[in-house]
Amino acid sequence: MTIDRASLRWNGWGPAAQENVLPDGAPQWEWIRTTLGLSRLPATPAKPLSEIRIPACRLDTLLLDRLRSIVGAEQVKLDDYERAFHARGKSYHDLLYLRAGMLDMVPDAVVYPRSADETLALVKLAAEEDITLIPFGGGSSVVGGINAMPKSLGGAVITLDTTLMSRVIQIDKIAMTATVEAGIYGPALEAALQQHGVTLAHYPQSFEFSTLGGWIAARGAGQQSNRYGKAEKWLVSAKLATPKGFWSTETTPASAAGPNLNQLVAGSEGTLGVICEATVKIHALPARKDYRGYLFKNFESGIEAARRINHADIPVAMVRLSDAPETHFFQAFSSTSSPTSLKARAQRAYLRLKGFDETPCLMLIGHEGDADTVVWAQAQTQAICKKLGALALGTGPGHKWYHGRFHAPYSRDPMLDHGIGIDTLETSTRWSNIANLHKAVVTAIEGAMAANMPERGARGIVMAHVSHSYPDGASLYFTFVFPRQLDREVEQWQAIKRAASDAILEHRGTISHHHGVGIDHAPWLAEEKGPVGYEVLKALKRELDPAGVLNPGKLIG
Amino acid sequence: MTIDRASLRWNGWGPAAQENVLPDGAPQWEWIRTTLGLSRLPATPAKPLSEIRIPACRLDTLLLDRLRSIVGAEQVKLDDYERAFHARGKSYHDLLYLRAGMLDMVPDAVVYPRSADETLALVKLAAEEDITLIPFGGGSSVVGGINAMPKSLGGAVITLDTTLMSRVIQIDKIAMTATVEAGIYGPALEAALQQHGVTLAHYPQSFEFSTLGGWIAARGAGQQSNRYGKAEKWLVSAKLATPKGFWSTETTPASAAGPNLNQLVAGSEGTLGVICEATVKIHALPARKDYRGYLFKNFESGIEAARRINHADIPVAMVRLSDAPETHFFQAFSSTSSPTSLKARAQRAYLRLKGFDETPCLMLIGHEGDADTVVWAQAQTQAICKKLGALALGTGPGHKWYHGRFHAPYSRDPMLDHGIGIDTLETSTRWSNIANLHKAVVTAIEGAMAANMPERGARGIVMAHVSHSYPDGASLYFTFVFPRQLDREVEQWQAIKRAASDAILEHRGTISHHHGVGIDHAPWLAEEKGPVGYEVLKALKRELDPAGVLNPGKLIG
Repeated sequence: MTIDRASLRWNGWGPAAQENVLPDGAPQWEWIRTTLGLSRLPATPAKPLSEIRIPACRLDTLLLDRLRSIVGAEQVKLDDYERAFHARGKSYHDLLYLRAGMLDMVPDAVVYPRSADETLALVKLAAEEDITLIPFGGGSSVVGGINAMPKSLGGAVITLDTTLMSRVIQIDKIAMTATVEAGIYGPALEAALQQHGVTLAHYPQSFEFSTLGGWIAARGAGQQSNRYGKAEKWLVSAKLATPKGFWSTETTPASAAGPNLNQLVAGSEGTLGVICEATVKIHALPARKDYRGYLFKNFESGIEAARRINHADIPVAMVRLSDAPETHFFQAFSSTSSPTSLKARAQRAYLRLKGFDETPCLMLIGHEGDADTVVWAQAQTQAICKKLGALALGTGPGHKWYHGRFHAPYSRDPMLDHGIGIDTLETSTRWSNIANLHKAVVTAIEGAMAANMPERGARGIVMAHVSHSYPDGASLYFTFVFPRQLDREVEQWQAIKRAASDAILEHRGTISHHHGVGIDHAPWLAEEKGPVGYEVLKALKRELDPAGVLNPGKLIG
Repeated sequence: MTIDRASLRWNGWGPAAQENVLPDGAPQWEWIRTTLGLSRLPATPAKPLSEIRIPACRLDTLLLDRLRSIVGAEQVKLDDYERAFHARGKSYHDLLYLRAGMLDMVPDAVVYPRSADETLALVKLAAEEDITLIPFGGGSSVVGGINAMPKSLGGAVITLDTTLMSRVIQIDKIAMTATVEAGIYGPALEAALQQHGVTLAHYPQSFEFSTLGGWIAARGAGQQSNRYGKAEKWLVSAKLATPKGFWSTETTPASAAGPNLNQLVAGSEGTLGVICEATVKIHALPARKDYRGYLFKNFESGIEAARRINHADIPVAMVRLSDAPETHFFQAFSSTSSPTSLKARAQRAYLRLKGFDETPCLMLIGHEGDADTVVWAQAQTQAICKKLGALALGTGPGHKWYHGRFHAPYSRDPMLDHGIGIDTLETSTRWSNIANLHKAVVTAIEGAMAANMPERGARGIVMAHVSHSYPDGASLYFTFVFPRQLDREVEQWQAIKRAASDAILEHRGTISHHHGVGIDHAPWLAEEKGPVGYEVLKALKRELDPAGVLNPGKLIG
């Protein structure tokens, strides 16, 4: 069971048929317009596919026949919809091109192998014929990770869609691992596992429309990574199809038999091979979940609480700390009552009385596990928060967040329809550097936004949260919303992205905590890895894909 | 502060001046003799260094002068003691050669750099001059990991001893990481950290005489790895001197910026570069330690308890389960009373009454952490053990084990003095395969020992324990004791080693869980990594050390 491509938006998020979460006339629009200092919100609809010219397929009949002989005629797609759907990922940058109908870079064919053997045959064919092959899972990359970029200008591109490889091969409840084909979508994977009382519990915001293989390839993180781990933690072993044949990585629980190569698979972004199968760590379905909110007087005391929780022996599933602008934004954005309403004013008065100023920071803490442990652990985290002056808000904010945890991407398309840009980026750094990095990136984004506004008085907003945390540090996830310069949308975005990325590297963050590198972050990777490390990555690429046909231009460029 | 080489045994374990733990006349000797079915225990003393001819140094004056110009004349050692000390590691196999005075393979010079810059200069010199360079920490390898093997027959060898690089560079109590020079010995590292209230808590059996860099290079494990992690888990970042220059790996807490290269450093065994510095995870000194014993009716129920403990959310520092022979051996070996004494007979009668047969299995569980958590966690693990029919023995066996946790290697030299061989090997596998792998390896070792005995009626003994455990499986650590065939000691050992290693690979274990690969396990590595993975390792080696001067013959041969 997979998702029918035709049921999805090729140029946006989610099902083709979906309710608009921000219909015209919704109360949020006026708030957005005034917040962004705009005189009006323009109508900027996307170009329909029917009006877009897709370049002709550059593959000759002989090659198409070879593809059909490998995967079967039904599994080779040449129609406009399939080619458009696989042209780009789901980044703001991608959507600018897709919505403008700029589809000069599309795959010449999309192939859907049904097995690892078929995948290997496709990889070998691509290497022999020197044709670009792009592994594609859900296509939800927000860094240009699966864009149909040929290895050389004007070359043909085949996209290998993995989503027909979606079988659960084995569930081992003794080792608590599952071996699964990599093209399985998140919901199908969890349904199959939960039927047996187990879970991988990897829930990124893209969960509904991303795949197991994509999570591993991009070194992704689920929202509950404190408990269940980032992809590189839950990945036990993988089987990849490479131009050199199948590459199956180590399967033993721990080993001193030389370097462990699984960590080369996590984050390989389809450049070293196509992930066909993966063995992953699973867990018993948690008997109890407890998500609740705490309000901190400032970002710094929240960071300190997150750090103390990570250093204590307390099992925790999620620690998420919004900065003051994000706390304010989500409160305002989701509130049906006006910020000047009686209720809102009464709330603010109460907080002021309790010593909270106008810029409190919301922390959400999630516990999952057996009932006893959750109760014990929740008491421990609450004690840490209270000791740092936080106000316990109970489970209300937790429930609300949990219910809407996959919703954010759905509001992007309506915003794009009204001249608004919205993008996110993320990084991680050591605890002692978080406040510093946070400030540097906010300043960089604000500066670049201010320098690239469509009209006088217009302004962008930037907000952030600590999304994932570790003993040595945490990640920062930035969201920025801005009025688009409609005559130079790509340049505007590039200016903001460049400013933020430069600030991240300058202030000792990583260029990505869980989105990956793709095309968008590739210019910063060499600096992050250093000259020797970068050459190591290139040597790996040369060894496994000497022709350079696998996902060229991504990761190491 | 480091350890003066001259104060250590060059051909055995520990200080040159040490009390013999098994002096002639000790009650254990008669027990050993009868257990091994020997008519007598021969005297097989080691050859003193003064009677051994060390080959002349093959390095010319020009080259020696260049070494001296890099590290200073005092740090270039050419004397017999230094060269003998650095000839081999501390495996049983090594000791056979060292004790027989077979020192045809010794380094031509030993150099002691005092900084990463000096190390890099040495590495570059070796690469330029095509001379073998062997990185050496404590020299406690038991797999031939630092043996003075030249890259080609008759070539010169320089051993680079890292132990003058032993400074603690930074302790970050906010991130709970420490950055330390890699040549620091275990006790010096812990003393420096504990002075600040923190610990790495990596305690392998070799702790007293092994170094931080060696732990990382060999992908080692401390006895409390459940809590503190194996080397690859606590390694945050490293700085290596390679022929291509310094290689500093990723430092951010977590990242999606491509494959993480730290996992290539852990287990690299000096073949990719010399580890100069490492940043490692540290912990607050545990306020409380609780080590106690449980007696299981059989190995299987103990394995099940270990598995359940790993799958529960219970913080545990150590779970160590001896099989029945090991439980019996240590009881008999350390007991002053005879197994036929009244006390021993009464103990056995009590156990029989409780449903334990003659072959119970001892489990030791260690908890470390803050007092509340230890009390809570100890109750949880005890409940699991009792549910599986175990007898709680209290803290007595725990204290006894903890006190003697570094003692085992000290009894090897006296055994070697009396014609007895003793060696260990280790592996890991998934939970469902542990009993099967255990049986296969025991059978293989017993078979090979039986086929290689010095006299009629003589026999070896083999015992094992689960030493480290994970959600998906655990390690098995085998010890075997046998009468030596004095006329073919090496062949006898090779026959046993080969049988055990073949059985491990055939039954889906890893060729090493924490000892590493070195020379001894190299013949099995290609099979374990698979053809593509093995070529990946070779590509890494070609990229970083194209001349192949760094620790040739180890790991990838």
